[in-house]
Amino acid sequence: MTTHTIAVLPGDGIGKEVMPEALKVLDRVGAMFDIGFRFSHFDWSCETWLATGSMMPPDGMDRLSQHDAILLGAVGYPTVPDHISLWGMLIPIRRDFDQYVNLRPVRLLPGIPCPLAGRGPGDIDFWIVRENTEGEYSQIGGRFAEGSEAEGVAQTAIFTRRGTDRIMRYAFDLAQRLNRPHVSSATKSNGLFHSMPYWDERFERMAAEYPQIRTDVHHIDILAARFVMYPERFDVVVGSNLFGDILSDLGPGVTGTIAIAPSANINPERRFPSMFEPVHGSAPDIAGRNIANPIGQVWATAMMLDHLGEAEAASRVLRAIEHVTANPSATVRTADIGGTASTSACGDAIVAAL
Amino acid sequence: MTTHTIAVLPGDGIGKEVMPEALKVLDRVGAMFDIGFRFSHFDWSCETWLATGSMMPPDGMDRLSQHDAILLGAVGYPTVPDHISLWGMLIPIRRDFDQYVNLRPVRLLPGIPCPLAGRGPGDIDFWIVRENTEGEYSQIGGRFAEGSEAEGVAQTAIFTRRGTDRIMRYAFDLAQRLNRPHVSSATKSNGLFHSMPYWDERFERMAAEYPQIRTDVHHIDILAARFVMYPERFDVVVGSNLFGDILSDLGPGVTGTIAIAPSANINPERRFPSMFEPVHGSAPDIAGRNIANPIGQVWATAMMLDHLGEAEAASRVLRAIEHVTANPSATVRTADIGGTASTSACGDAIVAAL
Ligand SMILES: CC(C)[C@H](C(=O)O)[C@@H](O)C(=O)O
Ligand SMILES: CC(C)[C@H](C(=O)O)[C@@H](O)C(=O)O
Repeated sequence: MTTHTIAVLPGDGIGKEVMPEALKVLDRVGAMFDIGFRFSHFDWSCETWLATGSMMPPDGMDRLSQHDAILLGAVGYPTVPDHISLWGMLIPIRRDFDQYVNLRPVRLLPGIPCPLAGRGPGDIDFWIVRENTEGEYSQIGGRFAEGSEAEGVAQTAIFTRRGTDRIMRYAFDLAQRLNRPHVSSATKSNGLFHSMPYWDERFERMAAEYPQIRTDVHHIDILAARFVMYPERFDVVVGSNLFGDILSDLGPGVTGTIAIAPSANINPERRFPSMFEPVHGSAPDIAGRNIANPIGQVWATAMMLDHLGEAEAASRVLRAIEHVTANPSATVRTADIGGTASTSACGDAIVAAL
Repeated sequence: MTTHTIAVLPGDGIGKEVMPEALKVLDRVGAMFDIGFRFSHFDWSCETWLATGSMMPPDGMDRLSQHDAILLGAVGYPTVPDHISLWGMLIPIRRDFDQYVNLRPVRLLPGIPCPLAGRGPGDIDFWIVRENTEGEYSQIGGRFAEGSEAEGVAQTAIFTRRGTDRIMRYAFDLAQRLNRPHVSSATKSNGLFHSMPYWDERFERMAAEYPQIRTDVHHIDILAARFVMYPERFDVVVGSNLFGDILSDLGPGVTGTIAIAPSANINPERRFPSMFEPVHGSAPDIAGRNIANPIGQVWATAMMLDHLGEAEAASRVLRAIEHVTANPSATVRTADIGGTASTSACGDAIVAAL
């Protein structure tokens, strides 16, 4: 029996409510497929920050590094500024563990009501490959003339050749591996004078190495519109940290609910643990009521299983999710998808469907 | 009779095809309402750049400044890099004429098929107020270690207090004037460490000056998803240059077609001419075939009339547009909205509806 060591970080808000459902699923799937899991539980969160002034203990990264993977809930709390909490845990984990690929499926599942007219399951099914360690997310900059009328702030994005090329290569390789030989690039080279013309240049070069893969390039503004008008046209979409972030909430919006979408923060070289989390946030407005949809967290867990080499277990979890979303009964559906189920009832239904 | 002087810049691609329709409409509306127009025609475009190495002649801005308003088609040509053409004309006009407000309506018109399920005219109707002179669109930055493996590029965004406050004030005043007392702010303060926390701070201060106006703040990623899931929730949305750009293509995408959406680049103090253009680009893929939809250009012209104090004529043009979009006959509808009409046939139908 293989045993995987998993660092479990529920984080804040509904993160604490959806995580137990993911763990139930792992327990069940472990028993079914003879996979062992050893969990380390870490309660690092905004509450830690409020109590201690930092999100993680000083040896936090060290402790996480001793695991095969990290399962994260969500981070964010009303009384802690978002840039403090996120730059105190989520973003450093992505960077220090060189999880430079953020992979996010956009897929319309059976039974999920689609906000777009005339689309059903199978009509929308593509992948977003988001750069996850550099670009627009940057601490370079600061205020000038603070307190005066001339006050302002500068914010500098950095795109390296290495960072740009490796995410593009991952996107092209993924398109090839999935036999979806079509990569779309998100740019804004007409407005962002330095960064995006460089992005385009690297994309063109990379495309030349993959002559069998069809490519197209869209400015982010029109690309966002096309996600709504023609979502069936996409296979693999590659974008910078910010553009990938925007597209990977918009995509789940187009497919009905962001509560079910997962996010894999991957270090492809496996020098460091990768991290798996739902796309949704800590949702303080509904936290503490046991009504959050746990599917995003469970789907993230399926992506983790896949990354750990447990492909069969992963696809079984995904089928169980689809079984539940296809079930019209209000007693297994959470409120966001038109039912009355509690978080745990939905989790139980997934376990039962396994 | 008042006479308005208008600088006419068709620009590139379909810009040259939709502009004549706008001029037909102005001719007609001028005769109906006893308004005079004196047009100056400028053929500045990417072709000018290919021939001369610059988009405009050296005294271009001077010549434009002698007009009451500027009517622009679209800029962009396959063989000219976008950042060259746009930073050679469109963006300098916005900046040098201090057109710091980019106002863009998002409205589902009668007869326009909506990609969202179950929505009809009246269900989607809000305004995007985009900052138009600073922020992410910046020429500050450049390449480092060029040609080596350590190569990369830096791109710096600048947000000033003056630039941030004035666009927010415009948004709040607009909400008040339109009696839509609700302003939503687009941010990304969890990822962009310096710029967006500052944006949020200024928004909070401005909101305190307008206690009668309801406010909410959305990270741009989830905001994009909400445009699709709950477009009825918005009244006035204020965003930075980049976020406003993305949202104002996404909004028209959600309401059926970006070909009909207009864009007003306004200098509210009227120290300089304001500029009116469609949201769509030069669309090289369909240029030269007389099939482009001229409605975006005509609606932009209605916004220009409004700005020039001709409110009655402006609303008459808008009603004529709605008359045409509501007409199911394929002979007045261009291909993008399900018909077979040519650009000029659609323009003729608008003139007839006046
Ligand atoms: C052409 C481009 C520079 C421009 C912009 O991004 O401002 C366009 O997309 C717009 O929205 O007017
Ligand atoms: C919470 C935030 C910093 C984060 C991001 O922007 O990366 C989130 O939106 C995501 O997509 O994982």
